[in-house]
Amino acid sequence: MNTPELQRLLEQVSRGEVDAEAAHVRLTEALRARPFEDLGFARVDHHRAIRQGFPEVVLGLGKTPAQVAAIAAAIVRRGSTLLVTRTNEAAFDAVRAVVKEATYYADAAIITFRQHDVVPGKGTIVVAAAGTSDLSVAEEAARTAELMGNQVERLYDVGVAGLHRLLSEQPTLAAARVIVVVAGMEGALPSVVSGLVSVPVIAVPTSVGYGASFGGIAALLGMLNSCSPSVAVVNIDNGFGAAYLASLINHL
Amino acid sequence: MNTPELQRLLEQVSRGEVDAEAAHVRLTEALRARPFEDLGFARVDHHRAIRQGFPEVVLGLGKTPAQVAAIAAAIVRRGSTLLVTRTNEAAFDAVRAVVKEATYYADAAIITFRQHDVVPGKGTIVVAAAGTSDLSVAEEAARTAELMGNQVERLYDVGVAGLHRLLSEQPTLAAARVIVVVAGMEGALPSVVSGLVSVPVIAVPTSVGYGASFGGIAALLGMLNSCSPSVAVVNIDNGFGAAYLASLINHL
Amino acid sequence: MNTPELQRLLEQVSRGEVDAEAAHVRLTEALRARPFEDLGFARVDHHRAIRQGFPEVVLGLGKTPAQVAAIAAAIVRRGSTLLVTRTNEAAFDAVRAVVKEATYYADAAIITFRQHDVVPGKGTIVVAAAGTSDLSVAEEAARTAELMGNQVERLYDVGVAGLHRLLSEQPTLAAARVIVVVAGMEGALPSVVSGLVSVPVIAVPTSVGYGASFGGIAALLGMLNSCSPSVAVVNIDNGFGAAYLASLINHL
Amino acid sequence: MNTPELQRLLEQVSRGEVDAEAAHVRLTEALRARPFEDLGFARVDHHRAIRQGFPEVVLGLGKTPAQVAAIAAAIVRRGSTLLVTRTNEAAFDAVRAVVKEATYYADAAIITFRQHDVVPGKGTIVVAAAGTSDLSVAEEAARTAELMGNQVERLYDVGVAGLHRLLSEQPTLAAARVIVVVAGMEGALPSVVSGLVSVPVIAVPTSVGYGASFGGIAALLGMLNSCSPSVAVVNIDNGFGAAYLASLINHL
Amino acid sequence: MNTPELQRLLEQVSRGEVDAEAAHVRLTEALRARPFEDLGFARVDHHRAIRQGFPEVVLGLGKTPAQVAAIAAAIVRRGSTLLVTRTNEAAFDAVRAVVKEATYYADAAIITFRQHDVVPGKGTIVVAAAGTSDLSVAEEAARTAELMGNQVERLYDVGVAGLHRLLSEQPTLAAARVIVVVAGMEGALPSVVSGLVSVPVIAVPTSVGYGASFGGIAALLGMLNSCSPSVAVVNIDNGFGAAYLASLINHL
Amino acid sequence: MNTPELQRLLEQVSRGEVDAEAAHVRLTEALRARPFEDLGFARVDHHRAIRQGFPEVVLGLGKTPAQVAAIAAAIVRRGSTLLVTRTNEAAFDAVRAVVKEATYYADAAIITFRQHDVVPGKGTIVVAAAGTSDLSVAEEAARTAELMGNQVERLYDVGVAGLHRLLSEQPTLAAARVIVVVAGMEGALPSVVSGLVSVPVIAVPTSVGYGASFGGIAALLGMLNSCSPSVAVVNIDNGFGAAYLASLINHL
Amino acid sequence: MNTPELQRLLEQVSRGEVDAEAAHVRLTEALRARPFEDLGFARVDHHRAIRQGFPEVVLGLGKTPAQVAAIAAAIVRRGSTLLVTRTNEAAFDAVRAVVKEATYYADAAIITFRQHDVVPGKGTIVVAAAGTSDLSVAEEAARTAELMGNQVERLYDVGVAGLHRLLSEQPTLAAARVIVVVAGMEGALPSVVSGLVSVPVIAVPTSVGYGASFGGIAALLGMLNSCSPSVAVVNIDNGFGAAYLASLINHL
Amino acid sequence: MNTPELQRLLEQVSRGEVDAEAAHVRLTEALRARPFEDLGFARVDHHRAIRQGFPEVVLGLGKTPAQVAAIAAAIVRRGSTLLVTRTNEAAFDAVRAVVKEATYYADAAIITFRQHDVVPGKGTIVVAAAGTSDLSVAEEAARTAELMGNQVERLYDVGVAGLHRLLSEQPTLAAARVIVVVAGMEGALPSVVSGLVSVPVIAVPTSVGYGASFGGIAALLGMLNSCSPSVAVVNIDNGFGAAYLASLINHL
Repeated sequence: MNTPELQRLLEQVSRGEVDAEAAHVRLTEALRARPFEDLGFARVDHHRAIRQGFPEVVLGLGKTPAQVAAIAAAIVRRGSTLLVTRTNEAAFDAVRAVVKEATYYADAAIITFRQHDVVPGKGTIVVAAAGTSDLSVAEEAARTAELMGNQVERLYDVGVAGLHRLLSEQPTLAAARVIVVVAGMEGALPSVVSGLVSVPVIAVPTSVGYGASFGGIAALLGMLNSCSPSVAVVNIDNGFGAAYLASLINHL
Repeated sequence: MNTPELQRLLEQVSRGEVDAEAAHVRLTEALRARPFEDLGFARVDHHRAIRQGFPEVVLGLGKTPAQVAAIAAAIVRRGSTLLVTRTNEAAFDAVRAVVKEATYYADAAIITFRQHDVVPGKGTIVVAAAGTSDLSVAEEAARTAELMGNQVERLYDVGVAGLHRLLSEQPTLAAARVIVVVAGMEGALPSVVSGLVSVPVIAVPTSVGYGASFGGIAALLGMLNSCSPSVAVVNIDNGFGAAYLASLINHL
Repeated sequence: MNTPELQRLLEQVSRGEVDAEAAHVRLTEALRARPFEDLGFARVDHHRAIRQGFPEVVLGLGKTPAQVAAIAAAIVRRGSTLLVTRTNEAAFDAVRAVVKEATYYADAAIITFRQHDVVPGKGTIVVAAAGTSDLSVAEEAARTAELMGNQVERLYDVGVAGLHRLLSEQPTLAAARVIVVVAGMEGALPSVVSGLVSVPVIAVPTSVGYGASFGGIAALLGMLNSCSPSVAVVNIDNGFGAAYLASLINHL
Repeated sequence: MNTPELQRLLEQVSRGEVDAEAAHVRLTEALRARPFEDLGFARVDHHRAIRQGFPEVVLGLGKTPAQVAAIAAAIVRRGSTLLVTRTNEAAFDAVRAVVKEATYYADAAIITFRQHDVVPGKGTIVVAAAGTSDLSVAEEAARTAELMGNQVERLYDVGVAGLHRLLSEQPTLAAARVIVVVAGMEGALPSVVSGLVSVPVIAVPTSVGYGASFGGIAALLGMLNSCSPSVAVVNIDNGFGAAYLASLINHL
Repeated sequence: MNTPELQRLLEQVSRGEVDAEAAHVRLTEALRARPFEDLGFARVDHHRAIRQGFPEVVLGLGKTPAQVAAIAAAIVRRGSTLLVTRTNEAAFDAVRAVVKEATYYADAAIITFRQHDVVPGKGTIVVAAAGTSDLSVAEEAARTAELMGNQVERLYDVGVAGLHRLLSEQPTLAAARVIVVVAGMEGALPSVVSGLVSVPVIAVPTSVGYGASFGGIAALLGMLNSCSPSVAVVNIDNGFGAAYLASLINHL
Repeated sequence: MNTPELQRLLEQVSRGEVDAEAAHVRLTEALRARPFEDLGFARVDHHRAIRQGFPEVVLGLGKTPAQVAAIAAAIVRRGSTLLVTRTNEAAFDAVRAVVKEATYYADAAIITFRQHDVVPGKGTIVVAAAGTSDLSVAEEAARTAELMGNQVERLYDVGVAGLHRLLSEQPTLAAARVIVVVAGMEGALPSVVSGLVSVPVIAVPTSVGYGASFGGIAALLGMLNSCSPSVAVVNIDNGFGAAYLASLINHL
Repeated sequence: MNTPELQRLLEQVSRGEVDAEAAHVRLTEALRARPFEDLGFARVDHHRAIRQGFPEVVLGLGKTPAQVAAIAAAIVRRGSTLLVTRTNEAAFDAVRAVVKEATYYADAAIITFRQHDVVPGKGTIVVAAAGTSDLSVAEEAARTAELMGNQVERLYDVGVAGLHRLLSEQPTLAAARVIVVVAGMEGALPSVVSGLVSVPVIAVPTSVGYGASFGGIAALLGMLNSCSPSVAVVNIDNGFGAAYLASLINHL
Repeated sequence: MNTPELQRLLEQVSRGEVDAEAAHVRLTEALRARPFEDLGFARVDHHRAIRQGFPEVVLGLGKTPAQVAAIAAAIVRRGSTLLVTRTNEAAFDAVRAVVKEATYYADAAIITFRQHDVVPGKGTIVVAAAGTSDLSVAEEAARTAELMGNQVERLYDVGVAGLHRLLSEQPTLAAARVIVVVAGMEGALPSVVSGLVSVPVIAVPTSVGYGASFGGIAALLGMLNSCSPSVAVVNIDNGFGAAYLASLINHL
């Protein structure tokens, strides 16, 4: 109940068109809903989904195929777009039994089913990956970004130890509105990329490596300490989160 | 504006005793305040202070004497009890200039001034410390607990390498309603104490030690891994937090 | 041998009813037993079990089904309440062969069999969990608390990234006497919950997460550094310990 | 030497207006410069400065006042806007001797002098800080963002242990185009903020805290593990970097 | 297009032998290729392979047998020498189906096939290993070095707790041009070896050990802190990298 | 070649009984062997084995059954006592095929076969363990100590959370000449034990625990920071090493 | 009250020489003292001091000169030998004012005053140090061992990068009954030393080093992972603890 | 005593020119010296100094000016070249009093005095540094390399966030025989440099940075995880060690 509505109600009471009791009931109801309506949590959530086509996201990790399928069915029944991350073939078999149109992208380890149109992003999101071992995380990012309505360009295997591969893709980098950079090992690629462009760079460390890579810590620290100021970092292997944020930026 | 007040206002509007415009103003004001009133944040804060005599707390660490004094003056002007932790002599000189009655406890590194009576705790809080080097943290805990209305018993220098000192204090431990145990180095005292009693034990690791104590990490890990299930842990050197929680428990 | 007994013995010696040699033997025996009797370890253990209905606890982790069953049978033979934590279906099959009435709670991974009435706790323990992945730890806490005689309210999936879910449960939080908060990932829920209430909060970090969650370290550090002073922390995934401590507090 | 220039030169050679030797010299010179021209490093740098008004940045940390002053003078002589971060009063005295118009913001520990107009950002950047101890980092961010042409709103002391302070600022948050969130201790504020809005959140962990905060590691891990997917993180205390990235986003 | 070629072209244009348009096309093409030609990336790569016989290297870790085989076939088709590291029997079966002449060294976990002669190294590379558990890493180093054209001497089981084993091999050490030292546990061998010789020592920590060896961290730190200044370190278990570097040095 | 032998040889040359050429050959041979003879490495090893009955030790971890059996056969052929640690049933089957008399202690995970008498230790070695989960490491220590000729007393399940269990064993502790204390979780037992006795305490942290025990780091740090000065520590789970050192001390 | 005294008292009561009341008082007093007498804590402490001449130890770290002096005076008044570790010149000035005979060893940073004869150790304790920077810790060990009645041999600057320095001291090592080895940086010296002898080696990591020595962690890990089984480790820089333990062993 | 000398002596004995007794004395003396002579420790040290002009090195860190001066004087008296690292102006004043010709390089924090000619290195050593803050470590490397007889080229401020600066120096890199790369923060420069050349790269992480650089750990891990196989790493800030190793390689 916004200000004009409140004003109108009170005038109706004042004019005797609505009696005090009925007004009390309507006001009480509005107030009970208000903590969230006023704070706008549920509404904002709803609006955001409509405006950006952002899907409900299910983290598949540690859930049984049956659990994933049950949640997926519920989401699709509500008419929402489906996105399951960090999932597998077995879960997909279970999901397909209840959501026939679902698609499984094995290289990204995600299951998706888009139920309605999304607002297209304004520019291109480049997803750059340092090595072939980083592809799974990179594909999670690329598929997520595409599902959210973004044009995506993939630049894979452009690690810093062979700079010419990266430098030859300068036009692609220059055309991006936001860049997601995925790298394991020493995690140097985001620093180098961000030195070549003037757009935001979202860096994703991966757990690729061995020994002193410590499951991605080396890459994470490298990215946090980037000497370039236009780099921000998400969690290790969090391709989904990087793409989500990149999509937010690309829809501004 | 609670339900009876709302009902009454609407009836007054209905009877023409209050016109729509005035009612609108009053309702709008009440609604603007409501998010917190309804959620009860500010009110609860206020009630809690009255009920438990819990003082406003100023973390002195990293503030200049002038800043501490300014905040202290503001708190005392509001009629609240003053508690400044991790402070020093210089800050006390500045505080004393504006709050004459303030007291400085050098061994606890706190400044206090109690402005009103507190609800007394129901039992005794024992503050046990393993070594003489842990006394500063232990005193921060003990003074905080006293300020919050609790009876406090101090058991200092009862480390586990000389068990007889601890065992001779069994009656004191047995009489406690909640025990705060402060220890650095290997942090074993909470495990031993909690094996001797059946009341909650709040463990405070201290940064006392050298080498592989790593500024309190060894003690912290020792306490988190206690083989006794009645131990919970607060941050390293956080005597204030332990006492605050112990006081909550002692006032239940 | 307590004071009146000692007095009586000495009088008997004085009156010649007991000769010095016999008295010496009896006193020596009493003194040999005394360190524990005087210190009261075993007795206290016994009293505590009777008074609080606290079960003997078996950590199932790393024990074979046969071992768990053997220990369970021994406990039940002594007439004690049985609680096995971190166990599984296979161990339950073995236990059921020797303790027919035992119950297995798969979602909590515990086996229990209550043999006698417990003293009821004085208020309600709320067990709040941030995400659905934290449920196993939360259920370990909830089932343990119930077994120890507490009224338990569960608030699951109330993570801080969707505050309205938590805020809508304010009345439940307000009615609690002590709150156990279970959270993985960034572990922010205890700070937020403790800001809404004035009762003790026991925080349980979980190993839920990936990448830089480091098996629960991120959540653990988040909780230890809580800006709210009414939070204490137990070991990662230690739902049992949190519930045990909460029950102690709730029985004060 | 761009394409038309090259074409023209070759035609001149063809027409005999320029002889082969002179053409060779000119081409060789152009080619020697080319690696950067073709790759566009220097040009882009130059264009970026003009387009975004981005200042040259001097990290004051570990430089003597004389060094800072010398670098500052050189920058100003080139006509560029000056920004020195992590500096102090002594350095400012030295800078003022050579750059009279420079300003020192003590609370942000930065020295600035803007030499030309900047392209204004498209929306508002909110800089939110959890506690009063985070202000220095927050001010570094706010001043940097302002210098780069952005409208900045400051929301300070809105930590999660007193949610009402944050919730009452929802309209300000809702009006932001990008939000920089600065927090130490448990670092929970970015998760909570990002749950209330649908714009990018750049999180800055601070080294504020003690004990198990480990100089900002606790906050850093908390932010990396945010359960909200619209959060990216920069280095501990890196207010400048967060603001730079936020400004890039706000100028898209 | 190098300097004489450019000079010649321009003279041809000057003499009318090539018209401006054709010259423009040829120059433009040369310039487009130039960033890499000028920077020499691809060329250097090519030259390096020819000069040093350096094989293309495939990190087998985390690739399926089919993937390894496909990459191996492509490499061999290009006429390059094949080296697959961190691989296994199953991958070898797949490789053998497409590269009949390939050899699998089970103790080094590598697959190789040398297609052309390599430039021999100038001296001997000694590969010393502390314990029998370090052999797999040591063999990866030794086989790699041999494949790259180096004479290799193996000194295995010469750990520092039985110095006489090492000291008896002094002549072998003295004859080396560069030494690769492989050690797990405390990682002390490189320090001791480098004290006995005056040639470069490349240290390889291994993940051999348990408990506080932390997967090779103890050995890594031991080597980085070597009190001998002629030791440099590569990643944990990185026998290939150490051998590659040793071969570079041995070919200088 | 010792001094009298050298003297004799030179006299023989002097007397013409041995010609210079033959003498040169013999001296050269002796000198080549000498570095170890002079330094006494191999000899000392041999003497030590005879004097202390110290067995050759095979670390079973990471060796195949066939490898363990081959090494065991070689050791037994040399007449030495056999000790294989961290081994298993499968390895034992292989060993038994070549060393019929070998014994496998499943609870200690060791295989032994004593071939000759050992010098008995001078006193008793107590092996104390905090919990039932530490038994495997404790048994590795106890069996090793027994094999080396020591009288061993086992005190198991005497953790610090139930002090009376430990205190009731004071006479056993008092009778020890050296004590090995095995504990996981918080690792507090060595501190408490060493406070009760005046003999050396060798502490063995175990990897028993979960969450913040970090595979034994918590116990390790606890022991290194012991407030008692008579405690020294070996690697996590290193029962063998502790027993070896205790035996050395007990044979002094 | 020991057994004969008790027997005598009871006989006196039996004979009427002491009445029941007086006997009760005397027995009760003895029993009140008994928990420690029975457990033997105080008595053992006393006996140990007499038997081993072990001094009371004051950790000077973090105490003011006045505090150190006050404690020192109290110890000397009790007739005990004085040992203050990690102290300085200023503290010594204060101590000398109350304990004229005290001596300050600047290189060991300790103050001592021996008040009575000590039981001599049975053999020699060698204190070996890797580098000149480790001397302070080594001297703390050496002086402590001497004060406790041991013959001490110092072997300084015998680091593993120049093995000949260590090997030339083999006779000294061979003559030791127990060896304390002090080393920073990579901490390899204990492994090498223990391979040359058959006596217990107590290893002391020092905080000497920089960069990846991490204040002694590298040396600590190196020592814990020693491939030699006769090494046990104490805390970083804990020369006192190593010497105390070595003295216990040397007095067995 | 080498082989010809021995042969000659024995022939002299055989011919009666030297009697057995005298021969015995001379042989015994030679043998007593032999452990080092045979092992060649001292000789090699001596030869190495002569051959490579390698100076005696004094680590100034933690030594008083008087100590540094005393050591420096001793070295110069022996006729050796002097090199003091990590020193300061005060130490230089003390050194100059005893070694008049000594030179202090403030930017490298080293004192040197070359006493004799050095064997020149065969090629150029390039010392590349990422940022201006790394200069002190880079200069330590450069000055050390020069003192050891190497031609040194400095490439400073060529960090990866502005690639063109590095790429423009490709000819310099290409002309190097070995490259020392100094970098803090993310430590990416060695990977990029080694991708551009085919010579050994010695990487030196520096402690430059703040927050999550953790005193150089981020750079260290980045370098250890380099995706380029021709990179080896030395300790944080160890410019001296890198230069020493580079000089060894350059003199091969």
